[in-house]
Amino acid sequence: MSKETLKQKFFAHRDVTNELASMINQDRYSFKPAETSMDSETLIKHMMKSANIFIAFAAGKQPLDLGEKEQAVNLAEYAQTYTDETIALFDELTEDGLDELIDMTEIFGAKMPAHQVIELAIDHEIHHKGNLFVYLRMMGYDELPLYVRT
Amino acid sequence: MSKETLKQKFFAHRDVTNELASMINQDRYSFKPAETSMDSETLIKHMMKSANIFIAFAAGKQPLDLGEKEQAVNLAEYAQTYTDETIALFDELTEDGLDELIDMTEIFGAKMPAHQVIELAIDHEIHHKGNLFVYLRMMGYDELPLYVRT
Repeated sequence: MSKETLKQKFFAHRDVTNELASMINQDRYSFKPAETSMDSETLIKHMMKSANIFIAFAAGKQPLDLGEKEQAVNLAEYAQTYTDETIALFDELTEDGLDELIDMTEIFGAKMPAHQVIELAIDHEIHHKGNLFVYLRMMGYDELPLYVRT
Repeated sequence: MSKETLKQKFFAHRDVTNELASMINQDRYSFKPAETSMDSETLIKHMMKSANIFIAFAAGKQPLDLGEKEQAVNLAEYAQTYTDETIALFDELTEDGLDELIDMTEIFGAKMPAHQVIELAIDHEIHHKGNLFVYLRMMGYDELPLYVRT
C-alpha cells in the first residue's frame, strides 16, 4: 500500500474513534464494562498514545508525550491533539521510507518494515475501537456511526 | 499485498476469534452487554457468515449457507465449519484475481478490486472480535489471548 492509502485507511478508522470519544460524557470517563477492563478514559488514551508511538517509529520521529497534562482532560480534545500530531507524523513519511526496517524489538520482539508497523497501528485502532463500541452501547448510546468512515 | 499475505493476515485474527468462540459456555450464548447489542451467538454467526460471503465474492464463488443447521449449534463447531470453508475459498483465489473488480454495490454501493474486498473482510473481523473481547471479560474470562496471533 502507498503512504496515501495507509494514511487514508488509518483515518477512516480514527475519525470514527474521535466521533465516539466526543460522545462520551465526562461523568462516564471511569466507566468500565468489567472489573478487568480498561475504563473508557484509559482505553481512549491507550489508543491515542499507541498509534502515535507506532507512526512516530515508522517515521523515525519522537512520539508526542503530553506528560503532566494527561491527568485531567477532556477526552475529545485529548483525542484531537493526538490525532493532529499523528497526521503530522504521517506527513513526515516518505514512500521509500515505508520499506525501511524499524527496530520494534522492545514492543514486538522483531524488526519490521515501516509499512508493517503502520498496518499494526491500523489493526490496533480497529481492535480497540471495536471494544469502544460496546462501551458506548452499554452507556446507552444506540445511534452509533458505522465502524469505518466510507 | 499478495494472496498469501492477505490469507495469513486474515487467519492471524480468525484463529483468535475461534479461540474466543470455544471459550464461551453454551449457557452464555444469549449473553449481550446492552439491550441494543447482538448476543454472543448472533455476533459470532455474523462474523462467520460475513467473512465467508466477502471471501466468496472475492473468489467469484458461492458463499456457504448452513441453512436449517444454523438453529441449534455448538458455536466452536459452527466457527470451525465456516473457517474451513473460508480457508478453501482463499485457496481458490489467484494472484491475478486480486485486481479483478468485484460488484459489491448491494453491500457497499460500489465495485472494488478483490484485494480490497478481502481487506474489508479483515477489518470487519478485527472490529467484531474487538466487540467479542469485551463480551468475554464481562462473562468473567480474564485470561484472554492477544488480539492477534503472532
